[in-house]
Amino acid sequence: MTALHARRRENLAALLPAHEADAILVTHAVNVYYLTGLASSNAAVLVRGDATATLATDSRYIGAARSVCDDIEVIEERDVAGALLAAEGGTGGSGRTGGSGGSGRIGIEAEHLSVAAYVRLGGDPPRLSEAVESVRTVKDEDEIALLRTACEITDRAFEAVLPALRPGATEREIARALERHMAGLGAEAPAFEAIVASGPNGAIPHHAPSDRPLERGDLVTMDFGARYRGYHADMTRTVAIGEPSGWQRELYDLVRAAQAAGVEALRTGTAPHEVDAAARDLITGAGYGEFFTHGLGHGVGLEIHEVPFLSPRKPERDHGHARLEDRVPITVEPGVYLPGRGGVRIEDTLVARDGGPELLTRTTKELLVL
Amino acid sequence: MTALHARRRENLAALLPAHEADAILVTHAVNVYYLTGLASSNAAVLVRGDATATLATDSRYIGAARSVCDDIEVIEERDVAGALLAAEGGTGGSGRTGGSGGSGRIGIEAEHLSVAAYVRLGGDPPRLSEAVESVRTVKDEDEIALLRTACEITDRAFEAVLPALRPGATEREIARALERHMAGLGAEAPAFEAIVASGPNGAIPHHAPSDRPLERGDLVTMDFGARYRGYHADMTRTVAIGEPSGWQRELYDLVRAAQAAGVEALRTGTAPHEVDAAARDLITGAGYGEFFTHGLGHGVGLEIHEVPFLSPRKPERDHGHARLEDRVPITVEPGVYLPGRGGVRIEDTLVARDGGPELLTRTTKELLVL
Repeated sequence: MTALHARRRENLAALLPAHEADAILVTHAVNVYYLTGLASSNAAVLVRGDATATLATDSRYIGAARSVCDDIEVIEERDVAGALLAAEGGTGGSGRTGGSGGSGRIGIEAEHLSVAAYVRLGGDPPRLSEAVESVRTVKDEDEIALLRTACEITDRAFEAVLPALRPGATEREIARALERHMAGLGAEAPAFEAIVASGPNGAIPHHAPSDRPLERGDLVTMDFGARYRGYHADMTRTVAIGEPSGWQRELYDLVRAAQAAGVEALRTGTAPHEVDAAARDLITGAGYGEFFTHGLGHGVGLEIHEVPFLSPRKPERDHGHARLEDRVPITVEPGVYLPGRGGVRIEDTLVARDGGPELLTRTTKELLVL
Repeated sequence: MTALHARRRENLAALLPAHEADAILVTHAVNVYYLTGLASSNAAVLVRGDATATLATDSRYIGAARSVCDDIEVIEERDVAGALLAAEGGTGGSGRTGGSGGSGRIGIEAEHLSVAAYVRLGGDPPRLSEAVESVRTVKDEDEIALLRTACEITDRAFEAVLPALRPGATEREIARALERHMAGLGAEAPAFEAIVASGPNGAIPHHAPSDRPLERGDLVTMDFGARYRGYHADMTRTVAIGEPSGWQRELYDLVRAAQAAGVEALRTGTAPHEVDAAARDLITGAGYGEFFTHGLGHGVGLEIHEVPFLSPRKPERDHGHARLEDRVPITVEPGVYLPGRGGVRIEDTLVARDGGPELLTRTTKELLVL
């Protein structure tokens, strides 16, 4: 994987001039993994403008670091950020960062470094916003293949849980069953804690599974996914327990049409807020706009929520991803939530591609009546 | 649970004068949960010196917030931190924090708030270090009961996995089996990703489970735990696949004796570094000091690693917990790691108590030969 990680570091290094930095101190664990292949709860990597890099980690991970990252310098230290700055020639005070050390101006990850760590580093280093995230947005085909496997596991877990969706089974039991099925199918972990929301609980978009038993006449929304070798699947389906009533079927058909409209709009070159609008306009036109209370979707990859975000807002900052690009995995997940009554959400994970979106979660979107 | 959370907020409010703050803006999700009962990925709570509080969260969690936190003011806003500061009377710039708003000087959580969020808040708010963590250190009996259940699930999962520990089974298969057993026994999630390190991999303290099959003659170290209603169990056992050799048994006996010495030293009123020394001196005396490369243990609770930390270092700051107190759950986990050969670690979760420590993980520490 060495060439892969070297290429990623080159992509990052190429962004540094625009951030007025000569190097970046990467401290966010997922970003360190992306740039080096090392999974560690205490590691940092300094990437310079010439794409050379130095990794620091502590004694627990140093063996793994030396074996995984054999193409870059590795240093062993508990204070990983401090050690990397010291190694660049600074020794403390305002000269450590932002000064004229070996690497010049060393930027930090403003969205991830804590205030306390920032103060410990000293100086006034450039605050880089989502630099590594920006590089991570467009995936390579190896990453998409892992995500595809995560989505296949998710599809199969959904199929496996269907027989358990009966009156009397609790939301919590269904959530745990989904997670057990995913583990049995090869997931390394759930991508996030499964949401199972039945009956009136379906009106709560991020409902935590409770001991409420499913009842005949419920709509049940399940939002879950598998993590496979670091990559996160994300899928939501709403099913009916027993024959749905008129308003339930009407709501389902509306959300399903909105989801299809969002997928249809998911074309490279389109701005994220335009994709959101394609789905939202349909829901608003049907009179339910105020009950679609969140954005249409989000990027997925090494984290469950990544840029770009599909929402009515235009992004505040342009990370060079103001329009959808080829090979950007993303969710499309409209929902309508009627307080006290229930809700419907339908979500797929897809990949934006020049030839049109690739669907990764392939479970049917017909309303299943169980 | 309202009285419980109100008492916790009172305990926090009582600490504010020592931090020269009139209120604290709590943004760390676990701390928000601890103080309010609301589990949310986007919530913040402002706790004032008089122990009154205001909670902010977005539309996805507002229903849960209003039902869980019926004793405090709740506001719905996406920018939770900004909304809470604005509600205190500040409107922007240096007057928003640290100024003379309704609550006076509003401190922030320096270990958790990101640099980017800090800059957005504006002003120069007091940076509080681990204030809520300090309140969380001493647990109430309800919390300890949840941790006890998490540890029981962990013990039972270990027993359930024993038949699978045979030559040919891979580290990854064992790790996934442990997690499946914990889920089946009622864990809501693994407390962390299980470590399974066999043969020479045992020399890597935080080895990620690989496709290496267990072999006769291996020592196998398993470090894992269940999470139950938010509380994290943590246990490590090392077993032998087939009859152990002389050095393996010698190493095991040494680590077991060190673990017992650490538990023996775990008395209220003792300083953390003294507990570490009780175990470490034994290992150093046997000539293996350089191969015990980490601290002896750590607090556990709503997070897997909490203060206090048992290590050779005296703590840099005194959070009012310079000596072990009654009702502090903590791990004792010495290990010896011989590069290229293998290692042994033995770990229990216990609770420091005035009458002597309570053992929560009760799996045997005899060397199991499988």
